[in-house]
Amino acid sequence: MLIHEDRLFPAESCARDLAKALYASIKGLPIVSPHGHTQAAWFARNEPFPDPAMLFVQPDHYVYRMLYSQGIPLEELEIGKPQMNDPRKVWRIFASNYHLFRGTPTRIWLDFAFHQLFSLDRRLSAATADLYYDSISEKLRTPEFLPRALFERFNLEVLATTDSPLDSLTDHQAIRDSSWKARILPTFRPDPVVDPEFAGFAANIAELGQQTSEDTGNWRGYLNALSKARARFRFLGCTATDHGHPTPQTADLSTAEAEALFGRVLAGDADTHQQELFRAQMLTEMARMSLDDGLVMQIHPGSVRNHNLALYQRYGRDIGADIPRPTNYVDALRPLLDRFGNEPNLTIILFTLDESTYSRELAPLAGHYPCLRLGPPWWFHDSPEGMMRFRQQATGTAGFYNTVGFNDDTRAFLSIPARHDVARRVDCAYLAKLVTEHRLAEDEAFEVAHDLTYRLVKKAYRL
Amino acid sequence: MLIHEDRLFPAESCARDLAKALYASIKGLPIVSPHGHTQAAWFARNEPFPDPAMLFVQPDHYVYRMLYSQGIPLEELEIGKPQMNDPRKVWRIFASNYHLFRGTPTRIWLDFAFHQLFSLDRRLSAATADLYYDSISEKLRTPEFLPRALFERFNLEVLATTDSPLDSLTDHQAIRDSSWKARILPTFRPDPVVDPEFAGFAANIAELGQQTSEDTGNWRGYLNALSKARARFRFLGCTATDHGHPTPQTADLSTAEAEALFGRVLAGDADTHQQELFRAQMLTEMARMSLDDGLVMQIHPGSVRNHNLALYQRYGRDIGADIPRPTNYVDALRPLLDRFGNEPNLTIILFTLDESTYSRELAPLAGHYPCLRLGPPWWFHDSPEGMMRFRQQATGTAGFYNTVGFNDDTRAFLSIPARHDVARRVDCAYLAKLVTEHRLAEDEAFEVAHDLTYRLVKKAYRL
Amino acid sequence: MLIHEDRLFPAESCARDLAKALYASIKGLPIVSPHGHTQAAWFARNEPFPDPAMLFVQPDHYVYRMLYSQGIPLEELEIGKPQMNDPRKVWRIFASNYHLFRGTPTRIWLDFAFHQLFSLDRRLSAATADLYYDSISEKLRTPEFLPRALFERFNLEVLATTDSPLDSLTDHQAIRDSSWKARILPTFRPDPVVDPEFAGFAANIAELGQQTSEDTGNWRGYLNALSKARARFRFLGCTATDHGHPTPQTADLSTAEAEALFGRVLAGDADTHQQELFRAQMLTEMARMSLDDGLVMQIHPGSVRNHNLALYQRYGRDIGADIPRPTNYVDALRPLLDRFGNEPNLTIILFTLDESTYSRELAPLAGHYPCLRLGPPWWFHDSPEGMMRFRQQATGTAGFYNTVGFNDDTRAFLSIPARHDVARRVDCAYLAKLVTEHRLAEDEAFEVAHDLTYRLVKKAYRL
Repeated sequence: MLIHEDRLFPAESCARDLAKALYASIKGLPIVSPHGHTQAAWFARNEPFPDPAMLFVQPDHYVYRMLYSQGIPLEELEIGKPQMNDPRKVWRIFASNYHLFRGTPTRIWLDFAFHQLFSLDRRLSAATADLYYDSISEKLRTPEFLPRALFERFNLEVLATTDSPLDSLTDHQAIRDSSWKARILPTFRPDPVVDPEFAGFAANIAELGQQTSEDTGNWRGYLNALSKARARFRFLGCTATDHGHPTPQTADLSTAEAEALFGRVLAGDADTHQQELFRAQMLTEMARMSLDDGLVMQIHPGSVRNHNLALYQRYGRDIGADIPRPTNYVDALRPLLDRFGNEPNLTIILFTLDESTYSRELAPLAGHYPCLRLGPPWWFHDSPEGMMRFRQQATGTAGFYNTVGFNDDTRAFLSIPARHDVARRVDCAYLAKLVTEHRLAEDEAFEVAHDLTYRLVKKAYRL
Repeated sequence: MLIHEDRLFPAESCARDLAKALYASIKGLPIVSPHGHTQAAWFARNEPFPDPAMLFVQPDHYVYRMLYSQGIPLEELEIGKPQMNDPRKVWRIFASNYHLFRGTPTRIWLDFAFHQLFSLDRRLSAATADLYYDSISEKLRTPEFLPRALFERFNLEVLATTDSPLDSLTDHQAIRDSSWKARILPTFRPDPVVDPEFAGFAANIAELGQQTSEDTGNWRGYLNALSKARARFRFLGCTATDHGHPTPQTADLSTAEAEALFGRVLAGDADTHQQELFRAQMLTEMARMSLDDGLVMQIHPGSVRNHNLALYQRYGRDIGADIPRPTNYVDALRPLLDRFGNEPNLTIILFTLDESTYSRELAPLAGHYPCLRLGPPWWFHDSPEGMMRFRQQATGTAGFYNTVGFNDDTRAFLSIPARHDVARRVDCAYLAKLVTEHRLAEDEAFEVAHDLTYRLVKKAYRL
Repeated sequence: MLIHEDRLFPAESCARDLAKALYASIKGLPIVSPHGHTQAAWFARNEPFPDPAMLFVQPDHYVYRMLYSQGIPLEELEIGKPQMNDPRKVWRIFASNYHLFRGTPTRIWLDFAFHQLFSLDRRLSAATADLYYDSISEKLRTPEFLPRALFERFNLEVLATTDSPLDSLTDHQAIRDSSWKARILPTFRPDPVVDPEFAGFAANIAELGQQTSEDTGNWRGYLNALSKARARFRFLGCTATDHGHPTPQTADLSTAEAEALFGRVLAGDADTHQQELFRAQMLTEMARMSLDDGLVMQIHPGSVRNHNLALYQRYGRDIGADIPRPTNYVDALRPLLDRFGNEPNLTIILFTLDESTYSRELAPLAGHYPCLRLGPPWWFHDSPEGMMRFRQQATGTAGFYNTVGFNDDTRAFLSIPARHDVARRVDCAYLAKLVTEHRLAEDEAFEVAHDLTYRLVKKAYRL
């Protein structure tokens, strides 16, 4: 058996029994996935997923990052190629190195998918590589494994994608126009047009102007264009924006200052500090627009993108070499909070890659400001231990009700049920511990388990 | 039952049994409370506490901070008003939102007080709000619930308050002059006269001069005045000072430099850097005076005060919007330690709001310098998990004997027994874990439990 | 009994039973000690160790640091003296204060040595001080307690020392020349000749020139000299370098810039920033040389050395007053990684004194770059809790196979078996937890236990 029915529950029997009971009560709840990186095109087209290597290895930087760290060249894994020459060979390399994932969440997610979706029950290894490859390939060609069928099988109530303001959203429109009534929503991620360091920044802004019939060469036109783009997203069900800035720095410049700064960044004359100031100002502008149109803001700061210069030059963004950096929220968010922090109708969900901020900054901020909520453990921190640390470090000050349920944040569609399953189990384990240590009554634990799994996410993301 | 007799003990039965035995051995020890924010006036006047809302909601920023974070306006809670118009309505709002406190230490403290003091055994909720309000109100009018009666019932051996150098201490004097022989001591907190950013700084210093008949317009007179104020506090039993600076920065300027800097801050001409330098210098001056008069220093750094500008402008200080910031001790303390770090007769107790410093800086510093001791987890970190993290992260390098027992640090008098009870239970749980993992002998655990509860605090605070 | 056979295993019985089984399977493996501070002279000369105080108190800054922190003057402990006047008196002070070590790893290591090596079974205290002193003294005079006999008894397969490039290595040569075939290897630690702040820096470089017949007054000659010194170490079995810089800052200057900078630091004209830049450049130079000669690099950053000025002035370096500081890896390592980060034949082992970097920076870096591996918890963090935190915080992203087994890092030869025993037990406890929570299969746990204890260290250090 690849997975055990009691996985991730505490070993101590009273706590385990209670964790199991809690989990049983929320196991059947639909999955609400308000933040992730799947592709609407999969569901618009509903074509079969390709082979196992293209499905499990190529899109998942958790997977090839680990293989690369142990000296396996990305070329051998055929990363970044639209089609693989020899996917079976790539799969065999992966299978032969599966032991590298021991102790990691990637291993848990993969075993879950192998077992639950593909009914495999021997461990992946060099010896079983071909068995896996053939079994998975065969299943992928069946109707039950088409994207829409899997969406339904996964019991997904909502699935949000992440999209550039320049995206045509035709795939989202196509899903709406189809007879298939699934709730797949875009998320407004304006980094390409608000981050002066984003490749093609000025061209992106020009394109935004064309799309919205606004003169994005000036500050007012640029803001109007963003506002129109947001409206276009909202029309297709979007309820949230997402901001992947290097830091959570915010600013509150006068219109004249902002106008002048915009001119400078657009002309490419801004230095590093001015680029950061522009991003900072744009967070506050986005908050202002959110007060108007109701979109929930997500701030995902703290990653040094493209840390590996050689790989970036060869493969471009998102190739597994983003590394977290210490992040300060208490000073960075102040300009925005001074302006809008007490607005009851604003929701800003904060994420972090710096766990030292959970108890020091994030829980105190979210435990005070009405507009702030804490996003779940993210990226490098979505392991069972990482999730447990989040609850242990944030709950004392922020409680449960300033948190917003789970984000799977994945590019790997097949890992969605596994990731939500892990989050649900860890929350049940945490609650079981509180009850067995007589810090929470049992009836309350059942209610909180339901809240964490379902109600809080729908409320926070306005779904 | 609101509270369980085994609460906060480990679920595993061997460890739980030992934790219970350890706790039984120290449960009856008197409470020594060397740091807190209760008011001497309560005990000087010995008048009944007002209604439940004025007792539990208004003074406790842990409580209204959480309610505010979920969108309940402070106006509805009648925060900051000398008298409430409708305390029952405030209480009902609190009761209806009691679920927000699930998983927080506030919930543990409140349930303890409700159960132990007011014999309530149904959970607080909208349904029980009036029952609670009436039961508590009735009891508060009885002699058993007068401040002095509660002080005795709580088995308080020492209770320290926190006081401005300008405070007349007449309430402390009145207690001394009364026939009631309780040990209630002032603590010398000079922030109003050593922090140039404190509201009314120059006027405070002028008043200090008048009170002490010193010319506080010059450096020497200012130092003399502080020395005299300290003597006045010591005369009423004070054994400690307390310093709530934004950072633990210290300095060791020449007399000429210090004199010039004092002139600048007093004239209001100092910039932010000079204000910080003045606070830094004053920590070293306070250490020097402590070597003379024996007062123990407490340094409580790391809080960004009044983070929420709108609330500060409306309500003033201490309204629940102080947020921790990363804190560096290793460089900041060096000037003071270079001067006095090896003095055997100096005691400086360090606190933190940045848990990442426990193992990295604080335990190594306290595990080396004879003058340094570690204060218990403070403020946002006094949850059961926070206390456990402190022991887990500090003990390896600092041991138990460079720590100083527990501080309740509370404004909520009725929470004192609950807070000490939590600390005692968590320490016993930690010790039980050490014993069941065969890292400490059982007889030693009993001795350490007693030390942590009683002996270390009396020794460190010279009580 | 001072030590229990189940020490450090989880209290819960299923996890404990499995931890015991895992431990039983790796208990008999030889000790590979690739990083430490024992002295080759002990094994070259094979003379009896002196008395208990010279053996256990004087060389172990973990021990006298704690005593000093509680007000015991170093003079009373006769620290820093080549011979003690009254070692029995020093021992009695230590014994009388043995309770200070409760809860610390030092206590575990000492009890292990007392029990396993000296068959003592009553606890050390004032009452047993003389019994201990006499028993240990007597045993130290027997052949079984000579350094080489202990080396064999400890089942040491490899023992690495740490040595200045200026060291003659005559003791290592003498061991090689003897009939005793133990594998004791030097480690190349160039701090005295690459850190401009090291006492005697310029003189050290001059001496390096003499030893290598290179003109170390110029950049090229200096690099040649270092290269020759490395070759001399390799000839005696050295497989690794070690770098104890204040920060992990690296640089990649042009030859002209590096040459000019070298001139400045050699002339003593460099400011603090330039000194740091020189150290930074030298890490990159060392990496370049490692690509040539295959030496594994160890980077041990983050310690503020000689924090206690008065003790440093009196006793010199390494007297127990080094304090960690926050450490940034993500920016600091970038210049070196931009140059060599993707080299498959380079190994750089990163250590930290800042636990907040485990999950934030170190695991993501080691989980991506092929040249990076994570060293075990170091110095203030080698407690059982510290080791457990390392696994809990690093494994999710870096897995097990980007780690390198255990370093004892000790000056106290007799503590080597105890320290490895603790590491093995904690790893088994961690693995047992993974298995009982169904996150790792039992057969895999046995394999990983063996890898962590033996195979990974040999592979990473190229032994």
